[in-house]
Amino acid sequence: MAMKVVITGGTGMLGRRLAIRILARPELRGPGGNPEAVDKLVLFDASEPVEPPPDDPRVQLVTGDICDPATVEALIDGETDAVFHFAAVVSGGAEADFDLGYAVNLTGGRFVLEAARRTGRCPKIVFTSSLAVYGGERSVDDSTALTPRTSYGAQKAIGELLVNDYTRKGFVDGRTLRLPTIVVRPGKPNKAASGFASSILREPLQGETVSNPVSRDTRMLILSPKRAVQAFIDVHNVDGDVLGPNRSVMMNGISPSIGEMLDALRAFAGDAVADRVHEAPDALVQSIVDAWPWYADGARARKLGMKPDASVQEIIESFVADELGGKFVS
Amino acid sequence: MAMKVVITGGTGMLGRRLAIRILARPELRGPGGNPEAVDKLVLFDASEPVEPPPDDPRVQLVTGDICDPATVEALIDGETDAVFHFAAVVSGGAEADFDLGYAVNLTGGRFVLEAARRTGRCPKIVFTSSLAVYGGERSVDDSTALTPRTSYGAQKAIGELLVNDYTRKGFVDGRTLRLPTIVVRPGKPNKAASGFASSILREPLQGETVSNPVSRDTRMLILSPKRAVQAFIDVHNVDGDVLGPNRSVMMNGISPSIGEMLDALRAFAGDAVADRVHEAPDALVQSIVDAWPWYADGARARKLGMKPDASVQEIIESFVADELGGKFVS
Repeated sequence: MAMKVVITGGTGMLGRRLAIRILARPELRGPGGNPEAVDKLVLFDASEPVEPPPDDPRVQLVTGDICDPATVEALIDGETDAVFHFAAVVSGGAEADFDLGYAVNLTGGRFVLEAARRTGRCPKIVFTSSLAVYGGERSVDDSTALTPRTSYGAQKAIGELLVNDYTRKGFVDGRTLRLPTIVVRPGKPNKAASGFASSILREPLQGETVSNPVSRDTRMLILSPKRAVQAFIDVHNVDGDVLGPNRSVMMNGISPSIGEMLDALRAFAGDAVADRVHEAPDALVQSIVDAWPWYADGARARKLGMKPDASVQEIIESFVADELGGKFVS
Repeated sequence: MAMKVVITGGTGMLGRRLAIRILARPELRGPGGNPEAVDKLVLFDASEPVEPPPDDPRVQLVTGDICDPATVEALIDGETDAVFHFAAVVSGGAEADFDLGYAVNLTGGRFVLEAARRTGRCPKIVFTSSLAVYGGERSVDDSTALTPRTSYGAQKAIGELLVNDYTRKGFVDGRTLRLPTIVVRPGKPNKAASGFASSILREPLQGETVSNPVSRDTRMLILSPKRAVQAFIDVHNVDGDVLGPNRSVMMNGISPSIGEMLDALRAFAGDAVADRVHEAPDALVQSIVDAWPWYADGARARKLGMKPDASVQEIIESFVADELGGKFVS
C-alpha cells in the first residue's frame, strides 16, 4: 500500500522542503499506522515555482486557484490519504488586501475541508497556523485564548476552529500546527514584518550588509525550516485519539534576543560577517514585533516529542549546510 | 436625529422583546453618544412571526433568507445605524444539519458584516454569541480559550473573530454578547438540550406536569430574557474604546443547582405547583449539560455595569409578571 499526498502551497518554502523530505524515505504513517511510501505527491500552487520542484516521477505539479471549489475538488480526490495545507496569503498581504485574505485563507481553506469531506474516507488534513493567532501576550501556552490582531491571525484562528469541527464530525482527520517565526528563511528578503529576523543572519553570511530594525533586547520566538518540516511530519503521524477534540498543537521555538542572535553569528562566522549588520531602528517594525509573544510553553508539543532547535548556533549551522552548500562569505 | 435599527431574527424570542423595549423609549445611544429615538425598526426573519410583532408604525417586517447576499444588502442600507444580529440556526439544528448551520451562522453572518461594511458609515453591529463557545470547563472567565464542542459553538466563536477583525479594520463598530442559557424562555417547550431548564419552571406554573431529566445537584448558568435584553442595550451603548480590540463581552448569570431552582419554585408558588415536576433522569441530557460551564466570572461585564438576575425567585417573578399576566395555576 502506498499513499497519495497533496501539498497546497507545495512549491513554497516549507511545502517544497516537506516534499523533498517525504520523497526521501517512508515516514508518513498510513491508515494502518505504519510508515508507508508515497507513490503520488501532488504539489499545488497558485503560480509557477520559483525554486525548482523535486525532480521525481512521483511528483505532479498542479497550478490553480484555491478559491475555485471545482479545482480543489479535482485536487483532493478519492485516492488522497493526506493533505498538507500551506497555501495562504501571508500576514502582510492579508492586511493589505482584506478581501483576498478572506477569500484564500478562509474560503479556500473551507474548500479544502469540503473536498476532503466529500471523499468520504476521512483523510488527514494538516493545517498550518501561526503565532499570529495570539494578541499581545508576552508568554503563551496551550491554553492561551486566541485574540488575533491581524486579519491573517483571525483567518488562521478560524481555520483552527473549522479543522476541529470537521474532525469532530468525522469528515476529516485534522490537525493544526501553530508555528513560530521561521528563521532562517532561505532566498531573498520579503516584506513580512518578521523578515528581518532571517535577513540579519542570511545576508551577512552571503557577503551583504543588512539593517537591523529592532533593539538588541527584543526577543523572537523562532524555529528553523528543518525543525518545522520535522514538526509537520510529527503532527501528521500522531494518533488522533492522543490529540483529542482540540487538534491544535502549538509548536515550541527558542526565544533568543536579537543581541543573542547577532552574538551567535559573530561566534560562528567571525567579526567581518557580524559587522555587516547595521543598527537602523524602525519604530513601526519595533511596534509590530513588540505585539508578538516572546515565549511559548507548549507542553503538548513537548509531550509529543516535537523538538525546537537547540540553539541559534544550530540554526545558523543548518542554514549554511543545507542552503549555502556548507560555505559562507567570510 | 433619529435612528434606523435592524434586528435579524427580529420576530424570535429575544429579538421581539428587544424590539418592544427599543420602541418604548429612547435608550440606544446614537452616533453623538446620546440616547436617541428610533424612527425605523426593521424586524428581519426567515419566516412569518409566531408571536405578534409590536404594533407600531415605526416597525417594518421583512421576511427573507439571510444566506442571500442581495437580501442582506437591501436590508442593511446606508441609513442603518445599528444591527442586532440574532438570526441563527440553533444548537440542535446546527448539529443535525451541518451545511445549513454553516450557511446561516457563518456565511449569513459574513453577509451581515459585509453589508454593514458597504454602507461606508461603520454602523454598530451587536452579535449574539453563547456559552457554547466553551468546551468542558467547569468555570469560565473573560480569558478562557474558546474550544467549542459543537458546530453551533464553532460558528459562534468564528463570528466573534470576524466581528473583532471587521471592527479593527474600521468597517463596523462591532460588539459581541456571549449569553448564558436563557431561563425562563416563554412559549412552548423546544428540543434544545437546555430546554428543560425553562420547562421545569414554566410548565408547573401553567398547571402542567413536567419531567426533570438531570440530577438536583447539576448547576446551570442562567439569565432571564429581561436581563438579556438589558444586556444587549448595555453592550450596544458602551463606548468602543472602552472595549478595545476584543469586542466580546461574556455576560454573567447566576448558577443555581436544579434543586435550588425547584426549591425556589416551591417557595414562590407552593407545593401543588412544585409537585408537578417529576424526576426522570436522562443520561444523554445529563451528559450534554455536564459539558457546559457552571460558573462564569465575567469581570468585564461586571465592570460595564451589566447585571445578572439577583435570584431564581426574581427570575420566576418576572416570568409570571411579564408572560403570565401576573397569574399562575396554583
